[in-house]
Amino acid sequence: MEQVYNFSAGPSMLPKEVLEKAQKEMLNYGDTGQSIMEMSHRSKEYYEIHNEAKKIFCEIMNIPNNYKVLMLQGGGSLQFSMVPMNLFKNGCADYAVTGYWADKAAIEAKKHLKVNRVLGSEDKKFSYIPKFDKSALSKDADYFHITTNNTIYGTRYIEIPITEEIPLVADMSSNILSESYDVSKFGLIYAAAQKNMGTSGVTFVIINENLIEKSLDFLPSAMSYETHSKNDSIYNTPPTYSIYISMLVCKWIKNNGGVEHINKLNEEKAKILYDCLDESKIFYGTAEKKFRSIMNVVFLSKSKEIDEKFISEAYKEGLINLKGHKSIGGMRASIYNAMPIEGIKKLVKFMKNFEYENKSI
Amino acid sequence: MEQVYNFSAGPSMLPKEVLEKAQKEMLNYGDTGQSIMEMSHRSKEYYEIHNEAKKIFCEIMNIPNNYKVLMLQGGGSLQFSMVPMNLFKNGCADYAVTGYWADKAAIEAKKHLKVNRVLGSEDKKFSYIPKFDKSALSKDADYFHITTNNTIYGTRYIEIPITEEIPLVADMSSNILSESYDVSKFGLIYAAAQKNMGTSGVTFVIINENLIEKSLDFLPSAMSYETHSKNDSIYNTPPTYSIYISMLVCKWIKNNGGVEHINKLNEEKAKILYDCLDESKIFYGTAEKKFRSIMNVVFLSKSKEIDEKFISEAYKEGLINLKGHKSIGGMRASIYNAMPIEGIKKLVKFMKNFEYENKSI
Repeated sequence: MEQVYNFSAGPSMLPKEVLEKAQKEMLNYGDTGQSIMEMSHRSKEYYEIHNEAKKIFCEIMNIPNNYKVLMLQGGGSLQFSMVPMNLFKNGCADYAVTGYWADKAAIEAKKHLKVNRVLGSEDKKFSYIPKFDKSALSKDADYFHITTNNTIYGTRYIEIPITEEIPLVADMSSNILSESYDVSKFGLIYAAAQKNMGTSGVTFVIINENLIEKSLDFLPSAMSYETHSKNDSIYNTPPTYSIYISMLVCKWIKNNGGVEHINKLNEEKAKILYDCLDESKIFYGTAEKKFRSIMNVVFLSKSKEIDEKFISEAYKEGLINLKGHKSIGGMRASIYNAMPIEGIKKLVKFMKNFEYENKSI
Repeated sequence: MEQVYNFSAGPSMLPKEVLEKAQKEMLNYGDTGQSIMEMSHRSKEYYEIHNEAKKIFCEIMNIPNNYKVLMLQGGGSLQFSMVPMNLFKNGCADYAVTGYWADKAAIEAKKHLKVNRVLGSEDKKFSYIPKFDKSALSKDADYFHITTNNTIYGTRYIEIPITEEIPLVADMSSNILSESYDVSKFGLIYAAAQKNMGTSGVTFVIINENLIEKSLDFLPSAMSYETHSKNDSIYNTPPTYSIYISMLVCKWIKNNGGVEHINKLNEEKAKILYDCLDESKIFYGTAEKKFRSIMNVVFLSKSKEIDEKFISEAYKEGLINLKGHKSIGGMRASIYNAMPIEGIKKLVKFMKNFEYENKSI
């Protein structure tokens, strides 16, 4: 197959420049005579890559000095447990269940503390984000957990809650670096890299220093923010190659006008696709317009049969991985930073043709 | 720098053929139009790689059918916690502390159950492996934990303990696939990939099915062998690229005569280096001869100054990462599967020259 446009929810497309650079450096990084994969994680050469990844990430995310950045293993799923295990104080936390992954996070947290489900949107099949209301939060909540972008239902927070004394924790796995955020509003942000900032195997955690405390006695060292912070994410062998790829992706964002510019492009890309949906007579988007994600565009047709026909014909055109998540069905076009506008245009053109050719069904 | 020989304890050298293949396939794997890093972990294309990695690994390790293979994140360090958290029954376990990492494993386990330190070798600075004696084990031990090869002190088990009804758990991170083992003697084996079977980011676990039980309620799903086993290591996004590299390494072993043949080569390689040490008047090995590791050759000279001079002059010759671990000092040459015999010969030649040139000191 030639160039394909991969609409997978993640892992997903990477910038071509990133892959080309990785290819070029595969056997000999710089003048070291080694592949990055062969480098000792305690070597000067690797340290430079490790620090560069952190540095550029901080720069493009505009992360204040009183925050630490950790690069960890285990994915978002391990963070679902690390967050409650590390931030445990009063033993309760509030979770805004606005989608599939938010629900998973709440379920995992419940193993360690009392979970209050507040400001969720299950009542309308996760098609919106409830208006924030501080009084809905528990007085003694150790933190309030949100999912800034809901990959499966295609919604996102258009306004970040101001939680004041209660630390705001955000799973940003599916939209980190896609729009500008004021990090100072958050206590902790985590994001697995494989959607918008690299390949799988590394998860970025941004944590306010005042949340890093002495770990509880039973906490595994490999799950302690304190341990990882003290050891600058080299407590044990880090996922070096995944960190290198994230470094290249961050550099690519920086060289392409930074997050602000990427944000504009993302809005433009999403608009083309949503406009097409709004004009369509056979497709419709599932999320309330106001809360539409600019990363994951979820839509359905009139029937399962049409969905399947659409997905399979699109595949033949090199428009791949358009199948929606099993919990909602239909289609999902994930259009992360690395999806070029040409991919969106090709998809829209295909949708219009498909609609024309199938107008009788 | 041209070709270097990298004696790092891990991550370390990879077979050149593996890196060349990875380079070639970086932008377009097979005929998919995608990089492996871009592939959805739920795609047919990725499944094939995932299953191939497992299949070849089982083949070259000769793993019986009643064992499951898991490919997980978190490194050996997370296994230090996952083992006690998953195998907990009576609430106690025996640990043979024969080195630095064995000690770390015991320390982490102690957070979750009672740890009995038995058959350790701290009394002689971890320079040997005590003779196994079944009566030293606790009657109610949930398992007995050993470290088959001690990376830092350069020793290894030359005989695997027969523990009968007590499951034997082994950290094989530093010598997996370097010599043939009878897997049926073990209840569980784990090995982080970055020393002998790939790059960092993935850890292989081989577990007897009868040890996979319903997880305790508090156990994070991402740390449950039951969960990972049920989901064939795709409970959440696996470290896809690291798994791909391990697949290539396993294939390389298979194509090069399998573990048995590699074992012979490793013994030959180690012998050249140990012979040199035994003949030397300024270098000496630290491990008792009988228990010498064929993966990590640890040696010291008469003084710290000579050590430093040796390490820095070797570096200039492209013999890199020979510095020993801080806990023992001196030198360590890690000579994993991918270290070519030419690397050993070059090191030995350099050692002899160094000795000749420094005979007066």
